[in-house]
Amino acid sequence: MPSRITDPQKDFPQWYQDVVYEADLAEHAPVKGCMIIKPYGYAIWERMRDFLDREIKRLGVQNVYFPLFIPERFLTKESEHVEGFAPEVAWVTHGGGKELEEKYAVRPTSETIMYDAFSRWVQSYRDLPLKINQWANVVRWEMRPRLFLRTLEFLWQEGHTAHATREEAEIMVAQALRAYQALSEEVLSIAVVPGRKSDAEKFAGADYTTTIEGLMRDGKALQMGTSHHLGQNFAKAFDITFLNAQGEKSLVWQTSWGVSTRMIGGLVMAHGDTKGLVLPPRIAPTQVVIVPIGKTEEEMRAVASVLDRDIIPVLAKLTLWDEPVRYYCDDRRQQTPGWKYNHWEVKGVPLRIEIGPKDVAQQAVMIARRDTGEKSPQPLLSLAHLVPSLLNDIQAQLLTSHRAFTDAHTHQSRTMDEFLSLLQSNGGFIRAPWCGNLACEKEVKARTKATIRLVGDSVAESSCLICRKPATLTPYFAVAY
Amino acid sequence: MPSRITDPQKDFPQWYQDVVYEADLAEHAPVKGCMIIKPYGYAIWERMRDFLDREIKRLGVQNVYFPLFIPERFLTKESEHVEGFAPEVAWVTHGGGKELEEKYAVRPTSETIMYDAFSRWVQSYRDLPLKINQWANVVRWEMRPRLFLRTLEFLWQEGHTAHATREEAEIMVAQALRAYQALSEEVLSIAVVPGRKSDAEKFAGADYTTTIEGLMRDGKALQMGTSHHLGQNFAKAFDITFLNAQGEKSLVWQTSWGVSTRMIGGLVMAHGDTKGLVLPPRIAPTQVVIVPIGKTEEEMRAVASVLDRDIIPVLAKLTLWDEPVRYYCDDRRQQTPGWKYNHWEVKGVPLRIEIGPKDVAQQAVMIARRDTGEKSPQPLLSLAHLVPSLLNDIQAQLLTSHRAFTDAHTHQSRTMDEFLSLLQSNGGFIRAPWCGNLACEKEVKARTKATIRLVGDSVAESSCLICRKPATLTPYFAVAY
Repeated sequence: MPSRITDPQKDFPQWYQDVVYEADLAEHAPVKGCMIIKPYGYAIWERMRDFLDREIKRLGVQNVYFPLFIPERFLTKESEHVEGFAPEVAWVTHGGGKELEEKYAVRPTSETIMYDAFSRWVQSYRDLPLKINQWANVVRWEMRPRLFLRTLEFLWQEGHTAHATREEAEIMVAQALRAYQALSEEVLSIAVVPGRKSDAEKFAGADYTTTIEGLMRDGKALQMGTSHHLGQNFAKAFDITFLNAQGEKSLVWQTSWGVSTRMIGGLVMAHGDTKGLVLPPRIAPTQVVIVPIGKTEEEMRAVASVLDRDIIPVLAKLTLWDEPVRYYCDDRRQQTPGWKYNHWEVKGVPLRIEIGPKDVAQQAVMIARRDTGEKSPQPLLSLAHLVPSLLNDIQAQLLTSHRAFTDAHTHQSRTMDEFLSLLQSNGGFIRAPWCGNLACEKEVKARTKATIRLVGDSVAESSCLICRKPATLTPYFAVAY
Repeated sequence: MPSRITDPQKDFPQWYQDVVYEADLAEHAPVKGCMIIKPYGYAIWERMRDFLDREIKRLGVQNVYFPLFIPERFLTKESEHVEGFAPEVAWVTHGGGKELEEKYAVRPTSETIMYDAFSRWVQSYRDLPLKINQWANVVRWEMRPRLFLRTLEFLWQEGHTAHATREEAEIMVAQALRAYQALSEEVLSIAVVPGRKSDAEKFAGADYTTTIEGLMRDGKALQMGTSHHLGQNFAKAFDITFLNAQGEKSLVWQTSWGVSTRMIGGLVMAHGDTKGLVLPPRIAPTQVVIVPIGKTEEEMRAVASVLDRDIIPVLAKLTLWDEPVRYYCDDRRQQTPGWKYNHWEVKGVPLRIEIGPKDVAQQAVMIARRDTGEKSPQPLLSLAHLVPSLLNDIQAQLLTSHRAFTDAHTHQSRTMDEFLSLLQSNGGFIRAPWCGNLACEKEVKARTKATIRLVGDSVAESSCLICRKPATLTPYFAVAY
């Protein structure tokens, strides 16, 4: 049958949308800029959420829920913050049949409404650290939507903390980023580069922003999650003070950090191939699909009896990563085996077990891996051992392969000519010396569309890509989503 | 110390708000009509959600996420529906710095936006049944807020299904209601009466609405969850048709059903007492609190060594209802034992274990039950057996007690005089004969504030409370939240 998925070499953006639609992850809503997350896409989000929720609870963070609506006067309290978000805000002006006296922003992020509460909740050093998180929807006006990557409304978590010292807040910023890196690498098998944003790219209202950046198969970078040190900027704007153990009044130090449904877009673009989605087993809603094969009723009965006796009961007992192995037996009569292979390949199911009359005779099954496409006969008796071992291997191999891809697409450059030629031929990250000035950062962006994804380490004895003055940093530049 | 909780006999609404605040469940937000759900309240919601999510997934329901914003033209497609919701809608009129061409409703419920998708998703009988659910925030304009019970924004789940036949949809309506009853009775220990709403009280756009109603300690009823048979009303409005196995085009039959954070209000009002919250162990974020007691450092060391050797390791191994037992050791030095007893009683923690130097000497602990207030010394060695057994007993006793309360506050009445005197002296449910006409239903409400919570069984040989014509039903009347 003809593939309904565009060749990613020919048109990567179209390939992306095809995969999201054909794997049934999501679709564009009839509300401009918004998406409908379908069951398969939402099941992936639930697994991300559950993993991350456990990780951040281990850090002592507690979940809460704050209002969706933020009065205009709150949003305007921190000046950099409001400048950053005002153009993207959706406004509620009417409710309950009346025009409102003060309009409400539909939350683009919750710093302001939460920190107003912090100023009431925090009185003494005994109230610190205060660590909360919410799983919520947010709205940022967007008229050029890309499913998961850029939508007017998206789902996310936002963590917000207050601490007695700058150093404690620094540690929190790093812990949150490490949790995101664990989600990305251990669960999604996406290798990321962690680091700091430049001032131009940091969060509106932060002292500094840290990020994890992943490279997609088209050579563009995706920001997968960010963790901000807010310094005392919001503490000043919202008057969040505490009495320390010596009875002195001090301002708190704050952090905020978030990841969103955007990560699902990263999952598609980091592993997907010409056939569709490729899912790491830890995140896959279905890890193993079984396809029974038989032409006659007699053949189907023979296959079914092996399924019921030697396959399903074995799979039902397996656990991996502290959860039962998730399998599904596709015994629909109206579809051919070939149709089913294709169907589950598009959806990225990591392992397929095929069993037909010949396999029954040989007490064997055929096992196919989605990631490598390898297919081999295996003895029935080996399933209990083989299935978890293969799933484990796929999980690890996908990360290894993505890390190798990232390494192969990370280059050094000392001149603009080299920079441009690398970017055109290869995409990916380009590390290049930079003086640290905004003007040069802007110049690179204007000439190449590449932005500083991370500022990188400090360097000595090299000169800025643009102005040739002494360079202080070697940022990772890339064209980004 | 003086209690900061009002006597419920004197002022039940104030008692309710005091308990919600003192137990730290939630607070009024600075956004009119909205609430902030605090960590302790949200932890309760998470447990409700996790239980119900498992139950509805067992019914074959899959989670999804639909946009928050609903274009005006969608909302107006089903006439009864829009009439029911229009007065409560919040409208987004501006976004991205511009006035919108078409304004968006902030979802008050998602029938319209979901069923527009259903009309695309459902083509053949093979696409049925379609069963989806979303966990989301909804907004219904409300200017007289009561925390959890009535807020402008609340959290809920909304299930939406489409079926090939009316009967299948009827079964789904009943299954969803049974899941709600299980949540209420098995998890929250709140006895409920399930049944149908009168036409006046049904959901805007439904053929019929079923409900579970619980009686609060002030004698008022609380609607805890509803499940609607939508017939083909929305299928007609949104053109949701399918080809059946015979190739004929038919309209689907639909259901929708939801429970919300309102249930937390019910939890407070069904079990709470003069000291504060009383939590059934299955929903309690902390099931057991341990309070070590000692005046001198030496005493505290002796107590700590018993804790570390004989108590914590024992509790850490216990499981109940397929989860580890949730305990917390409150060893803060700056607070007295008495302060801690009060603190955890207000928060409704089911069991308290006290251990001091005398207990150490006797190889014993003191165990206090929050529900009955009973306190008794118990041998250290009995903890492994006693803790799960007591938690189990508290869970069951709270339900038994609430059922007894409901029964004691359910009365029959055949005349308005009797009805009024029962309502004034006793509150609760009053079952009274009704002819089935809206006029009489309205008359009861006008004279007593009581509404029909459920229509009840059919009856013979009695006459309507109001018009004295032959009665056909014996509704449960009550004053309701």
